[in-house]
Amino acid sequence: MLYLVGLGLADETDITVKGLEVVKKAERVYLEAYTSILLVDKEKLEAFYGRPVIVADRELVESGSDDILAGADKTDVAFLVVGDPFGATTHTDLVLRARELGIESKVIPNASIMSGIGCTGLQLYNFGQTVSMVFFTENWKPSSYYDRVKENVQLGLHTLVLVDIKVKEPSLESMARGRIVYEPPRFMTVAQCTSQMLETEEERKEGVYGPDSLAVGAARVGAVDQKLVAGTLKELSEVDMGPPLHSVVLLGKKAHDLERDYIRQFAVDHATFDASWQKGGYGTMQ
Amino acid sequence: MLYLVGLGLADETDITVKGLEVVKKAERVYLEAYTSILLVDKEKLEAFYGRPVIVADRELVESGSDDILAGADKTDVAFLVVGDPFGATTHTDLVLRARELGIESKVIPNASIMSGIGCTGLQLYNFGQTVSMVFFTENWKPSSYYDRVKENVQLGLHTLVLVDIKVKEPSLESMARGRIVYEPPRFMTVAQCTSQMLETEEERKEGVYGPDSLAVGAARVGAVDQKLVAGTLKELSEVDMGPPLHSVVLLGKKAHDLERDYIRQFAVDHATFDASWQKGGYGTMQ
Repeated sequence: MLYLVGLGLADETDITVKGLEVVKKAERVYLEAYTSILLVDKEKLEAFYGRPVIVADRELVESGSDDILAGADKTDVAFLVVGDPFGATTHTDLVLRARELGIESKVIPNASIMSGIGCTGLQLYNFGQTVSMVFFTENWKPSSYYDRVKENVQLGLHTLVLVDIKVKEPSLESMARGRIVYEPPRFMTVAQCTSQMLETEEERKEGVYGPDSLAVGAARVGAVDQKLVAGTLKELSEVDMGPPLHSVVLLGKKAHDLERDYIRQFAVDHATFDASWQKGGYGTMQ
Repeated sequence: MLYLVGLGLADETDITVKGLEVVKKAERVYLEAYTSILLVDKEKLEAFYGRPVIVADRELVESGSDDILAGADKTDVAFLVVGDPFGATTHTDLVLRARELGIESKVIPNASIMSGIGCTGLQLYNFGQTVSMVFFTENWKPSSYYDRVKENVQLGLHTLVLVDIKVKEPSLESMARGRIVYEPPRFMTVAQCTSQMLETEEERKEGVYGPDSLAVGAARVGAVDQKLVAGTLKELSEVDMGPPLHSVVLLGKKAHDLERDYIRQFAVDHATFDASWQKGGYGTMQ
């Protein structure tokens, strides 16, 4: 049996009781460690599980899935995924491959950022499609996300913006030299994400949002040091939310008073928050 | 401290290790039991926790929240919510009330149906806004959900349809007589939900979807007997998915081939599935 086990969002104790039982009994335990990270390291997980954990990077999962699945028709293999196995990143390809090999799969769900973002107090019902933001480079500033944000904005819906992480990325320079060296891990911040959003708006000029648009930044959702900040995109582009992982929600105009009351608690500045709420026409589009 | 603890979707072992520690130590433990249910009863939870559990019905949560919060400035109170505390139903009002009383709150996230529906293999990125479907009566068939489905359909997005549950509802007859008797619990099925969807389409006639539109029915997500069925709305309106809880996803035209391959595994009928996919133009709107 292939078990895809969600680990939740923050630390080793966010695994479910059911998931932990699977991990303790599985023949081999893999940790998918390239689309998201827990806020604790592999050693802490191994100590908590009392088991060795094999880190599965993108290469292993995408090209070596048969190694992961080896023997899983007879014994149990656990494939651990930060968040939910079918959350922000879905591992349907691994399940489909298992099926081709005659191996059954079971999923142990857990909190995903896709629903965990509800901790902001914003109603999940009022969210439109989720978008993701990659690190811009000098020559590559993809803005297709902006079209989807536009669709949400026109409907008055909130947009969850998931931000880029780079784990074990080969440096271009080293690839050119033929000997691969990996870049240090990078995690996009709320400030970087909102700055890039404003950069795209300046480029595209379709008035989808602006420096005064309200948004919520979330850091380390579910952790003891979880941090939420509400403010204008301008304010958030200057905020320091601390260590990863971060996410951003662009507020939709359908936001209602209970949502306002909740996020106002953690506004950067109550005066600019209230002014932007008023000026932006939030709460008027029900 | 007020702890809002997510219980996940299926049984007592879906609580996280972190959540279980909180429950074992809290002074009082409440179970919110009117917006969703676990597939196990209160006694099973109490045996698993080794603690008594107080069932909190709508009346207690909405009118008696100060009873729930009593003493939580000095001791710990655990408020258990099926799914995630800020998932489909948010308990922001309880947190805000706690704050007014000077009581701190912490949320222990867990799987919510809002992300758990990813188990269908449909990408959460491709979902638009979530809608909910109430039980139609002879004279009350609210169709405002249809407008939101229309918005999603126009953008090619999937729609998660959460279905009604009725737990501890007073019977109208008994209320008229002045002595309240509660109706037996009712849980909407995939068949009922899709039938009502077709009824609304017949009424509104805006061509948002039709009997041949593809959808996925999900029952008991995360449980050992989880069941997924893909088919046309017509097919799903006749399907028996077994015990609650059920959900429906109306497929958007942006569905891509990997999503098709995944849901096709559990199609009611491969021939009608393939024909509807082709005829409906799924996969053509990228």
